[in-house]
Amino acid sequence: MTTDIRIHVDRARSAAIGPEHGITPRDLKAIEADLKKAHRALRTGRREKHHGFFDLHKDKATLEHVQTKANEFRVRDYDNLVILGIGGSSLGTITLASALKPPYYNLLSKAERQGAPRLFVMDNVDPDTFAAMMKVCPPRNTLYNVISKSGGTAEIAAQLLIVLEALEGELGKSALKDHLVVTVGPQDKRAKKTLLHDLKERYQLDGFEVPANVGGRFSVFTPVGLFPAAMLGLDLQALAAGCAAMDKRCSKPSIADNPAYLRAAIQFLANTQKGKAISVMMPYSDCLRDIADWYRQLWAESLGKRTSLDGQNNDLFTGQTPIKALGVTDQHSQLQLYLEGPNDKIHTILEQRNFNTTLRIPQAPSSVPGLEYLQGQTMNKLMAAERKATIDALTEAKRPVMRIVLPKVNEHTLAQLLYLLEVETAMAGRLFNVDAFDQPAVERIKVLTRQNMGERK
Amino acid sequence: MTTDIRIHVDRARSAAIGPEHGITPRDLKAIEADLKKAHRALRTGRREKHHGFFDLHKDKATLEHVQTKANEFRVRDYDNLVILGIGGSSLGTITLASALKPPYYNLLSKAERQGAPRLFVMDNVDPDTFAAMMKVCPPRNTLYNVISKSGGTAEIAAQLLIVLEALEGELGKSALKDHLVVTVGPQDKRAKKTLLHDLKERYQLDGFEVPANVGGRFSVFTPVGLFPAAMLGLDLQALAAGCAAMDKRCSKPSIADNPAYLRAAIQFLANTQKGKAISVMMPYSDCLRDIADWYRQLWAESLGKRTSLDGQNNDLFTGQTPIKALGVTDQHSQLQLYLEGPNDKIHTILEQRNFNTTLRIPQAPSSVPGLEYLQGQTMNKLMAAERKATIDALTEAKRPVMRIVLPKVNEHTLAQLLYLLEVETAMAGRLFNVDAFDQPAVERIKVLTRQNMGERK
Repeated sequence: MTTDIRIHVDRARSAAIGPEHGITPRDLKAIEADLKKAHRALRTGRREKHHGFFDLHKDKATLEHVQTKANEFRVRDYDNLVILGIGGSSLGTITLASALKPPYYNLLSKAERQGAPRLFVMDNVDPDTFAAMMKVCPPRNTLYNVISKSGGTAEIAAQLLIVLEALEGELGKSALKDHLVVTVGPQDKRAKKTLLHDLKERYQLDGFEVPANVGGRFSVFTPVGLFPAAMLGLDLQALAAGCAAMDKRCSKPSIADNPAYLRAAIQFLANTQKGKAISVMMPYSDCLRDIADWYRQLWAESLGKRTSLDGQNNDLFTGQTPIKALGVTDQHSQLQLYLEGPNDKIHTILEQRNFNTTLRIPQAPSSVPGLEYLQGQTMNKLMAAERKATIDALTEAKRPVMRIVLPKVNEHTLAQLLYLLEVETAMAGRLFNVDAFDQPAVERIKVLTRQNMGERK
Repeated sequence: MTTDIRIHVDRARSAAIGPEHGITPRDLKAIEADLKKAHRALRTGRREKHHGFFDLHKDKATLEHVQTKANEFRVRDYDNLVILGIGGSSLGTITLASALKPPYYNLLSKAERQGAPRLFVMDNVDPDTFAAMMKVCPPRNTLYNVISKSGGTAEIAAQLLIVLEALEGELGKSALKDHLVVTVGPQDKRAKKTLLHDLKERYQLDGFEVPANVGGRFSVFTPVGLFPAAMLGLDLQALAAGCAAMDKRCSKPSIADNPAYLRAAIQFLANTQKGKAISVMMPYSDCLRDIADWYRQLWAESLGKRTSLDGQNNDLFTGQTPIKALGVTDQHSQLQLYLEGPNDKIHTILEQRNFNTTLRIPQAPSSVPGLEYLQGQTMNKLMAAERKATIDALTEAKRPVMRIVLPKVNEHTLAQLLYLLEVETAMAGRLFNVDAFDQPAVERIKVLTRQNMGERK
């Protein structure tokens, strides 16, 4: 069985759904020069180390360092790993864990978890949730990994101060080093220390650095995602190998060979030429469902921009809205709209070819009409049949669909998928003519939040 | 403290964000006659019992029956309640449970759960998840509630046959009655029995009826939602009282007094006059996050239609795409797009005024610059400050925002909210000129699925 993921775009082409909604050869031809230029710019950005995410899988030293540290902490047998992180500091870990750990992971026994800790990702400042976590995860048997690239994210600072007080109160200052790991970006030498930098130094805490040239939403393969992954027993080498395999495919200059560029081109054209304001990601697999949230940040925050790449045009207001759906569940919720509502969406179906379990559907105790087609089949086949039905119905309704097929879900295929989507996003930024690596509007919220907290100006 | 939820739309008006993106008095005036006509049609539909959802809270007999049955089952001390249901058969229960039960509910001890069972909602046919559930919830201490209005939903039939085999195999046929409760619509007398109807009769199972005049997505206050709620120890009377309170407000003919009509009018105008193709629901509260999924089905499946209400126009392709976000989490993911991307969204912020917990943010061990505004404050205040920052930033960017404020989250306020959104959707259906109560496109998927399963034609 091949371990390569496959990317299909035929149902987004005019040959399948007509030129009003499908991408024509002429559409693609028209952006060929832009694609070439964008390719060269991305290569330059990579070579000059502006876009660090491209090369993370080659950093064997970091992989080994993270693995070594995780091994040290694993020996201490924590029941709980709590991530204090928001946005790019949490979504990668959620994605890896829900794809690669068993369903109902936190309900399993320690033996069933193969000795790995339960996982809690604190990505909000809801007081009820946070207080409940502190009760469910007593400091004594919990390892906290606090993650903030800047070192001073307000939500994470608030969480950290609460955890710090509990740790000190229950276990004493000397225990901090055994319960707190700090993942933070390099310290700005010209500025004063942030909370995370200060605490790390003051208590000699273990920790990891987020590279300066990797933004939060591209950081899943830095220690931001790797340390939690290693704590959960995931295979970091296989993650790196998956990235390397996709890197090879995504280094090709032409959309004929480069699946990331092909997807970026089609999404860009669908948005700008065919009125597809919305990009739906719909995994047909529970374990892949959280990828859609990770991608939602990647796509929205990278492309939702009012300012052009050269800074000259401040009224672009560009970007495509990424939304999340789940097959088959959302067939009973969203598909009515996708099929009969405005033709304003392009869909990406994520397919898991082989599940870990094959689940037979038994015979009914009596002959019930209309069930013949189910009995003696498998739930696996039903899932596949529904997926195909959705794709075919969307095609009939002239709605563009792309597919990404994972032969199996494991570290290698998942890393391919995430790396693919990162390169796709970087290319899309170029095509949309925006900086895919900043997030200027978020600053305004920070200022207003501080004002609302009563900060003196 | 008032127990009424409050609805604010001022930030969606032209006075706040200008007439290009905000609703003007003239816009509202222009649909006054349509609103009146729609109001009369809805009143007629209610009186003639086409729209059963309006009056569910008045059905004291059903409330009492459900409560009595739940009390009987509660005594038997199940560890797990498993819902076999999809779409409208599951989303209501998920919404009620995550809003009204404590965070990390399934991880709490039985004492902490006040004796109520853990909850598992099986709303997919993922073989890995389903097999994992069967292991985590052994039949012996599990009550299964299978829910399908038609009685023959393919996904639910498949789940049920697997559960049935496990129950019979482990506990014998005689135990079925103690472990399986059937919630199903009335049997079609002209058709042959469906699987659920057949099993219910064959094994004399307990169960409940879904009223024929209530569609799945409007069924949360039928036994579909009520029985699981009662099993979890929720207060059915308070749910009914919340519905009644909102019913009173939503029976008024004019948008000046009727918050459901006001919201429907603004969403309709935002969509058709101001280019807001997308409606974002963004709760600032973890426990309210799943309401957005429930609403997503309600809004999408009710309004996403190609055919007009009178059946004459088959090319409407109408509907607004509902999407889910979570504050503050998605400030670090989606807000960049909402603020600087295309101005194609209208936002509804859900506010929880009082949390159960007040969580103080302690002082840092040393003076760290830039943290002064956090220390000694509360996480509650931070949540509120961020929420206000988001609303203000959206307003500055001329993006329409509505707010719904819950003084506290409990059965009474939550029921108000759900009832409000149901009436809003019914009114919106009229304004969009579609049948808000059917879902014709879903049928096509069913046909294709059966074909893909190899059914003989």
